[in-house]
Amino acid sequence: MEAAKKYLEDMRIGDTFESREYRVDLDEIRTFAQSFDPQVFHLDEAAAAQTVFRGLAASGWHTAAITMRLLVESVPIAGGMIGVGGEISWPRPTRPGDSLHVVTRVIEIIPSQSKPDRGIVVLQGDTINQNGEICQQVTPRMLVFRRQPAEPDSNRAGAETLVGKQ
Amino acid sequence: MEAAKKYLEDMRIGDTFESREYRVDLDEIRTFAQSFDPQVFHLDEAAAAQTVFRGLAASGWHTAAITMRLLVESVPIAGGMIGVGGEISWPRPTRPGDSLHVVTRVIEIIPSQSKPDRGIVVLQGDTINQNGEICQQVTPRMLVFRRQPAEPDSNRAGAETLVGKQ
Repeated sequence: MEAAKKYLEDMRIGDTFESREYRVDLDEIRTFAQSFDPQVFHLDEAAAAQTVFRGLAASGWHTAAITMRLLVESVPIAGGMIGVGGEISWPRPTRPGDSLHVVTRVIEIIPSQSKPDRGIVVLQGDTINQNGEICQQVTPRMLVFRRQPAEPDSNRAGAETLVGKQ
Repeated sequence: MEAAKKYLEDMRIGDTFESREYRVDLDEIRTFAQSFDPQVFHLDEAAAAQTVFRGLAASGWHTAAITMRLLVESVPIAGGMIGVGGEISWPRPTRPGDSLHVVTRVIEIIPSQSKPDRGIVVLQGDTINQNGEICQQVTPRMLVFRRQPAEPDSNRAGAETLVGKQ
């Protein structure tokens, strides 16, 4: 059964969502790296041992892509998960055999000043391995629609971007 | 012929690198989305036309992954392109048939205070389509090694992270 999809009016700071576990195997790490990040520490175990990673590590952008998969599955936003940007960091690499899950919290809710039907919700998503260690932190700014448009605001300007004036 | 690889001592603020063009086709957009961002606006052209994207759009994380591929090819850092984090935004989506290239500029150079053999170089990478429009901006913080370790610093603490104290 799918969780009820949330509109801007339904979101509260502190709302928390948790994804399933996603196991990352060596083949998937190499396949992603061959396409998008063909560097030795993502491709060759013996050579990777001689680098600063001290062993084979997933591309950070692979961890980011897996995190997006888990966010899409676990954060029930009406209209979908539409990110306009955010901050990302990788405190430690994802390793072959890691099982990742994502814990996501609503940290800020910003109604648009120019578009009465939408706003931005800032999430914090921590991507955590089987040892409870954080492999990635991301704070995506998500476009979220209202169920009902807000009351008109005379200061509202023409809407030149997807998210309007903040 | 490969460009000479750069160490921290070789980097200057304003150094600029430009990648080749990378054509993004519909099949690649769908394949990436099926694995990592299975939402209708990345998968189905007719349904995507009814969404805020008004047509099929690549996942932002797909644009990010393509950008990484182009960075690896075009920014010659000794020891490889090792990012520890950064800010990312998607001013407009990547569309099927777009040809992307990345223009990267060095915007900050921060020697580590605790690890004499390395520092952080902050880049700004703009991912630009065939019309000169920016589809993504990213400011990755890259780990860059020195050719020769810096002089010892008595304030230097033990090094608990990959990049040391900034």
